[in-house]
Amino acid sequence: MKQVNKRKVHRFSNGHFKQIEDIIAVEYPITIKINGKEFITIVCTPEYIEDMVVGFLASEKVIGKYEDIQKIWVQKDLGFVHIETSKVFPYYEQLHSKRYITSCCGMSRQGFVFANDALTAKQMTKTNVTLTPKECFYLMKEMEKTADVFHHTGGVHNAALCNQKGVVLARMDIGRHNALDKIYGYCLRNNISVHDKVIVFSGRISSEILLKVAKIGCEIVLSKSAPTELALELAEELGITTVGFLRNESFNVYTHPERIVSNQ
Amino acid sequence: MKQVNKRKVHRFSNGHFKQIEDIIAVEYPITIKINGKEFITIVCTPEYIEDMVVGFLASEKVIGKYEDIQKIWVQKDLGFVHIETSKVFPYYEQLHSKRYITSCCGMSRQGFVFANDALTAKQMTKTNVTLTPKECFYLMKEMEKTADVFHHTGGVHNAALCNQKGVVLARMDIGRHNALDKIYGYCLRNNISVHDKVIVFSGRISSEILLKVAKIGCEIVLSKSAPTELALELAEELGITTVGFLRNESFNVYTHPERIVSNQ
Repeated sequence: MKQVNKRKVHRFSNGHFKQIEDIIAVEYPITIKINGKEFITIVCTPEYIEDMVVGFLASEKVIGKYEDIQKIWVQKDLGFVHIETSKVFPYYEQLHSKRYITSCCGMSRQGFVFANDALTAKQMTKTNVTLTPKECFYLMKEMEKTADVFHHTGGVHNAALCNQKGVVLARMDIGRHNALDKIYGYCLRNNISVHDKVIVFSGRISSEILLKVAKIGCEIVLSKSAPTELALELAEELGITTVGFLRNESFNVYTHPERIVSNQ
Repeated sequence: MKQVNKRKVHRFSNGHFKQIEDIIAVEYPITIKINGKEFITIVCTPEYIEDMVVGFLASEKVIGKYEDIQKIWVQKDLGFVHIETSKVFPYYEQLHSKRYITSCCGMSRQGFVFANDALTAKQMTKTNVTLTPKECFYLMKEMEKTADVFHHTGGVHNAALCNQKGVVLARMDIGRHNALDKIYGYCLRNNISVHDKVIVFSGRISSEILLKVAKIGCEIVLSKSAPTELALELAEELGITTVGFLRNESFNVYTHPERIVSNQ
């Protein structure tokens, strides 16, 4: 399936209109069917679809581990992904998108909003990886080199799984969280360890993105953009180092600064 | 409720770390209860909450018109919004997020993904409003003047309802579509006509954003960013003029260029 499409566009510049050809990012709806039953529809960039679905189902606690999926196949013409599993988490339909109400029935300090997030977000209690500022700048540059479709269309988000030396895996998607689900699914299907790796992301660090990072199991997230307050509260609680506004020669460390160490 | 929070941050610049105070955008979860039953949780910037909920429910076809809501009240401490209505759309739970399968069972030309979108998106068959390039640049500048929280935090999206003369209503949110739901809800609650107005938006024009514009009932959307292919297919079909990459002194018109007219 194509990730981009060509289109005739009326461009206005220097005071005049002219017709040019432009490249536009494709959005494609994928409907997940679990044991024949429609579960959810995700609008995404149509590549690495199986990885995205596996990553999504694992991060939403619909499946416990990748081995619990007996069969996964994509029906490209109709946009269906079929999952066969005998070990589906029994409460997934009740829990999906349901609010996680703490004992005090109000907003809890730790900030979990959805019940399935509280079940699948991992807490980082150790420091398996550190980065120097130089490595932070280097990894952002390396991630950006992979961002072809963004450079052509301006319409997608980019994410990369990196170690200190560079990019291990780079994915893009028109949906912010899909890019991370594609990385997570690939790691689960190929037994890639994430303990010494970091996530580099092009977009804002919302609570949703922070939780995806926690579910994947990475200790550090680097972003070009801003975080939100709820994301930072979750990062504090879950032991994740958040680095934002990583641009030119500067950045901000918001939480768990112990993993960003001096250049020497 | 606060829209931003202050936080101590480790800033790296000019080769050194120093501690500074930074302003971070707040994310707040709102759970909508309809006649006492939990419907959905939306994570948002906590302002204009009633408007957002009314806009969301109308655009999702959960309510037919604002007058069908007997009572709406916000329980701020718990993050609940209670809706009392005797005229809830009977199939809303079955339709919500359900895929819209056309007769041929494949991707239809018109690109609707979700059933409720096909019910609520309005088709623009007339030209009630036109803009000159000069007015396009002016409206983007005026919208950006309203974007205080973005300038402080970098973490929110901005949307404005405008006429040719300037901004009528500006809203922001950490969630892209929430900003548009806040505009839609305000218009419904205050009987604001949108027929001669346009939407100016800071972010990308995805299919979701395009459909929100169609549901509000505006004929033109101006954006600083890129559109997606599915958004443009929907815009063609629904008669909406999409203008993207509106920056400095240039922009692209992707669909229905008849509403962008020369400066004379």
